[in-house]
Amino acid sequence: MAVYTQVSADALAEFLSRYDLGEAVTFKGIAEGVQNSNYFVETTHGRYFLTLYEHRVDLNELPYFLSLMTHLADKGLPVPRPLTDRKGVALQMLAGRPACLIEFLRGVSVNEPTPAECRAAGEALGAMHVALADFKGHRINDLALPGWHDLADACAARANELPEGLATQIADELAFLDANWPKGLATSAIHADLFPDNLMFTAGKVSALIDFYFAATDIRAYDLAVMHTAWCFSSDGATYFPERAAALVAGYRAAHVLTDAELAALPVLCRGAALRFLLTRAFDWINTPAGALVTRKDPLAFARRLDWYHSATADTLTGA
Amino acid sequence: MAVYTQVSADALAEFLSRYDLGEAVTFKGIAEGVQNSNYFVETTHGRYFLTLYEHRVDLNELPYFLSLMTHLADKGLPVPRPLTDRKGVALQMLAGRPACLIEFLRGVSVNEPTPAECRAAGEALGAMHVALADFKGHRINDLALPGWHDLADACAARANELPEGLATQIADELAFLDANWPKGLATSAIHADLFPDNLMFTAGKVSALIDFYFAATDIRAYDLAVMHTAWCFSSDGATYFPERAAALVAGYRAAHVLTDAELAALPVLCRGAALRFLLTRAFDWINTPAGALVTRKDPLAFARRLDWYHSATADTLTGA
Repeated sequence: MAVYTQVSADALAEFLSRYDLGEAVTFKGIAEGVQNSNYFVETTHGRYFLTLYEHRVDLNELPYFLSLMTHLADKGLPVPRPLTDRKGVALQMLAGRPACLIEFLRGVSVNEPTPAECRAAGEALGAMHVALADFKGHRINDLALPGWHDLADACAARANELPEGLATQIADELAFLDANWPKGLATSAIHADLFPDNLMFTAGKVSALIDFYFAATDIRAYDLAVMHTAWCFSSDGATYFPERAAALVAGYRAAHVLTDAELAALPVLCRGAALRFLLTRAFDWINTPAGALVTRKDPLAFARRLDWYHSATADTLTGA
Repeated sequence: MAVYTQVSADALAEFLSRYDLGEAVTFKGIAEGVQNSNYFVETTHGRYFLTLYEHRVDLNELPYFLSLMTHLADKGLPVPRPLTDRKGVALQMLAGRPACLIEFLRGVSVNEPTPAECRAAGEALGAMHVALADFKGHRINDLALPGWHDLADACAARANELPEGLATQIADELAFLDANWPKGLATSAIHADLFPDNLMFTAGKVSALIDFYFAATDIRAYDLAVMHTAWCFSSDGATYFPERAAALVAGYRAAHVLTDAELAALPVLCRGAALRFLLTRAFDWINTPAGALVTRKDPLAFARRLDWYHSATADTLTGA
């Protein structure tokens, strides 16, 4: 969590001159996001976020993310709207990086969500899926099964740097998911990373959904599975909270249908979601270079969730 | 530049309950400061900074820094005021660290100051020295001559990790300063680190002086020498801008007297200031651990300034 690209006062002034938003009165780097540099910018007109996209982000994919955010903001969802310059262009260049000025939304992320917050979060996901039904954009999810195989291969080559048994657990799980990944479920644009960090509350209500840079086209119910693994356990994965899960799923169902087929597939989808975060954490664990600005997160937190899901049913998953 | 200590939403809510400032509506880590963790906090009452003091800061010295900031804010200077809780206490504990909620001041730092900005900055330093004339606090400057010797010894032991010739340059300079450091000049509480990053502007006027955590009792004119080395060169130290220096000194003199003795000592004081930043950069260069969150800054940028000061006179220093 850091600012990778420095923006000088002069560069900022030139950048803001492309818009009709006045001049900068406050400018602070935000310690948020591991892929991009983010700044808080206050001008004489209002408050904004400025995101500079770093090398991990594919420039060709930025229009997808920005159009998705714009689509959701247009539908009235609490999603930060990408702002456009005088010529109507959202994606800019600044300090040698692609950049976008984005609406500032208030809110505070929760760390230990209450059932009421889980319900509100599930409802926000459902409302987002409703709003995405007519979204035309398409992006292949590079963190779906084929991508998991690539990550697993990369980790297997350096398995000795991982906690003991982890490489075997990954290989076994991938074999299971290859054989059992659900087919025929509805697909949609999904957020794919709606962890508590990416959902903000003000006065108990959802005030912002943020960080759409993993969004892609995939099985719609997989988005709920990601939230299940993200919201319903202690952060170390050692404790499952059924009352959070019940509230999350009930909230989702209050806003969007969850079909019998989706419900039946949820245990497998949750195993996939837990494996996805296990894999990216394991990969980052062995690839975080000396001197990196990013703090490594423990992959075992998701290995424990994966173990729990092995004996889960649709009933235990939904807190019944 | 990063947030070292994470503060959960629950810990923040408990912290804010010690004050009468309402509840948090926005909470963002700020990528600013290398010694402390800083957050932007917006509550239902207003906007604040939250600083958590990390291990590099001596807990016993925090009351000095906070009383200095309060003294300056009381005098009407644009210095962020430490806020006190319902019991009148500024210094708190949060997430296991000493912490303080501080007034939010707007502003944008400049990277390449214009002469007009240098003049305003010099004037702000002079006004600060006027306001500090009756400040009773005292703190030994651990980054004065004895401290420079300690840093030089630490660097000399690993001189092979530094650019060639740097250890020799440091030793020669220290010998010169030992023999020539001015005596008898007026002392005062000084900021001691008033780089452009630590001074913010709004609409061309100084809106904030920040980061008082190197403040100490020392030769008052040394504060102007620090600003000279910080504001009057290109960041790599290769180019000197006499028009900035002329404006800086004229601004200072518009707000505070600069005696003939101080002016005569300025070349030596500037050599000391350049050496001080050369030494801390050289020390950080060889001691930045693998995985550190801090970007190393090039010590040669101050070695070049030091070279320039060798042939400087009071006239060239003041842009004449």
